[in-house]
Amino acid sequence: MRRGRDVAALVRAARDGDPRAVARLISLVEDADPALPEVAAALTDHAGTAQVIGLTGSPGVGKSTTTNELVRALRARGRRVGVLAVDPSSPFTGGAILGDRVRMQDHATDAGVYIRSMSSRGHLGGLAAATPQAVRVLEGAGCDVVLVETVGVGQAEVEVASLADTTLVLLAPGMGDAIQAVKAGILEIADIFVVNKADRDGADATYRDIQGSIALGERQPGDWRPTVLRSVASRAEGVDDILAAIDKHHDWLVEHGELARRREARAAAEIEGIALATLRSRISSLRDGTALPKLASAVAGGELDPYTAARNLLDGLEVQGT
Amino acid sequence: MRRGRDVAALVRAARDGDPRAVARLISLVEDADPALPEVAAALTDHAGTAQVIGLTGSPGVGKSTTTNELVRALRARGRRVGVLAVDPSSPFTGGAILGDRVRMQDHATDAGVYIRSMSSRGHLGGLAAATPQAVRVLEGAGCDVVLVETVGVGQAEVEVASLADTTLVLLAPGMGDAIQAVKAGILEIADIFVVNKADRDGADATYRDIQGSIALGERQPGDWRPTVLRSVASRAEGVDDILAAIDKHHDWLVEHGELARRREARAAAEIEGIALATLRSRISSLRDGTALPKLASAVAGGELDPYTAARNLLDGLEVQGT
Repeated sequence: MRRGRDVAALVRAARDGDPRAVARLISLVEDADPALPEVAAALTDHAGTAQVIGLTGSPGVGKSTTTNELVRALRARGRRVGVLAVDPSSPFTGGAILGDRVRMQDHATDAGVYIRSMSSRGHLGGLAAATPQAVRVLEGAGCDVVLVETVGVGQAEVEVASLADTTLVLLAPGMGDAIQAVKAGILEIADIFVVNKADRDGADATYRDIQGSIALGERQPGDWRPTVLRSVASRAEGVDDILAAIDKHHDWLVEHGELARRREARAAAEIEGIALATLRSRISSLRDGTALPKLASAVAGGELDPYTAARNLLDGLEVQGT
Repeated sequence: MRRGRDVAALVRAARDGDPRAVARLISLVEDADPALPEVAAALTDHAGTAQVIGLTGSPGVGKSTTTNELVRALRARGRRVGVLAVDPSSPFTGGAILGDRVRMQDHATDAGVYIRSMSSRGHLGGLAAATPQAVRVLEGAGCDVVLVETVGVGQAEVEVASLADTTLVLLAPGMGDAIQAVKAGILEIADIFVVNKADRDGADATYRDIQGSIALGERQPGDWRPTVLRSVASRAEGVDDILAAIDKHHDWLVEHGELARRREARAAAEIEGIALATLRSRISSLRDGTALPKLASAVAGGELDPYTAARNLLDGLEVQGT
């Protein structure tokens, strides 16, 4: 996109609540548009204003339904809500609406709710890098709460979920999720477990399983002990309990200085990621120059070792910012 | 390890044919030992002296047996042979002998053969980065031919296989390998296809399948058209045909200037990989400093955007060699 005036106008429109401007800004994030640094700069003073809640779990545990009910309850409290539905396993969902997003249309006409599916598309650092920037866009648009929903329970989901202030892990009876959660390292990142579909057979066993895993988990004195709740999201049962647990965890974060610590750690990871992506693209750009082919020819010909060649290459690299 | 004299002595011992010195040097490569640049420098003048042959295929197609027979045939021709058995999917094989390596013990007492299993262990750039350096060790030890055997047909295997001058892809009847090969991009990297277990039902169908895929593949005039062969490695049938095809491909590479071009492209990728790994570790080392925490705190507090922070971080980064 064109620079300068356009970015400023877009950010202003997003702040005024124009959903198309918000959508456009998130697309810029997904595409890793060259205007991104400008977008980020324009959004700076709103950074950190939203409470970021991560929500993850295997397919079929009821993530969309739960998100839907959480949005409804938050709206009833007068909070502005953003939802980022992230699918790390699929690079192709694009800005398109996921199939089960249709249920979200409950909120389609509510100006206090933004719902967006996200993919990694062209973003160099992947979704783990793109998501915090998309959160910033939603903060800029005045969201008080941002729900980041990820599909699945793998490493990518752990990374995305770890961007949240509070992370919810959803389980359902009889899916072996509890064991999966432990395996995937979800246990370490979950602040709240929700056994959804709690009216089904096996809900008690799942509840006990996860309580057992938590009891076995290593914690220092003063660490947060994950809450375990039950819900039947399809009947809106247990949703108030979830919100109450989120509030309680948020208070704990603030009291223990953990909120600031988590957000700083996240910011550090984000800065490192951007710095590394910058360096990677500068190194790639050397392919068109004369230095790399010359060094490669010397290495292939046995005149130079690759380490010395890499050092020579770095000597000629402009690393300093613009 | 200690520097200077030790590395020089080790490289000298490897050149004199001491198998323990060769093993020790490959372990340094696997572990990304700090002495690696020194090792690489000491090995420089032997770089590019060996013919590098890649061999890949799904589990069960007969890779080990084929490698074993190729080694036997190459030894009969008086060539010194190195074998690197690489398993990209397992970070844990270590320097240990894989189960099926036992068959290789045919050559255990032959001083003209080095056999080594390799894992990525601590190596920053993974096996794709470690393998060319291990090849260099084997070249330094006087190997005329280095066989790089990879397990499986995924992206990691494609990367490792692409380090070779000539890449063999093994298939077996009735395993759906042909389709797998096309999917995984193996078709683009294979110079020679070998339908092993050619005495089994379905061998003709597999042969026709792969011929059909090759016919459909895009090639420029003058490009190499992959050879398709049959073998029964367990009875040593077809092995001479494979060696003849390798020789023919090697001649073609030399005639068309492709050998130099491929090796330079590989060297360029290797240099880039080392340069990037160097920068990554320098950025990581900033975590212990004061700059990154300060910038992270400013970003988390909404005083700075992450792009400006990354630029500031890079301004303070020492990138130049040593």
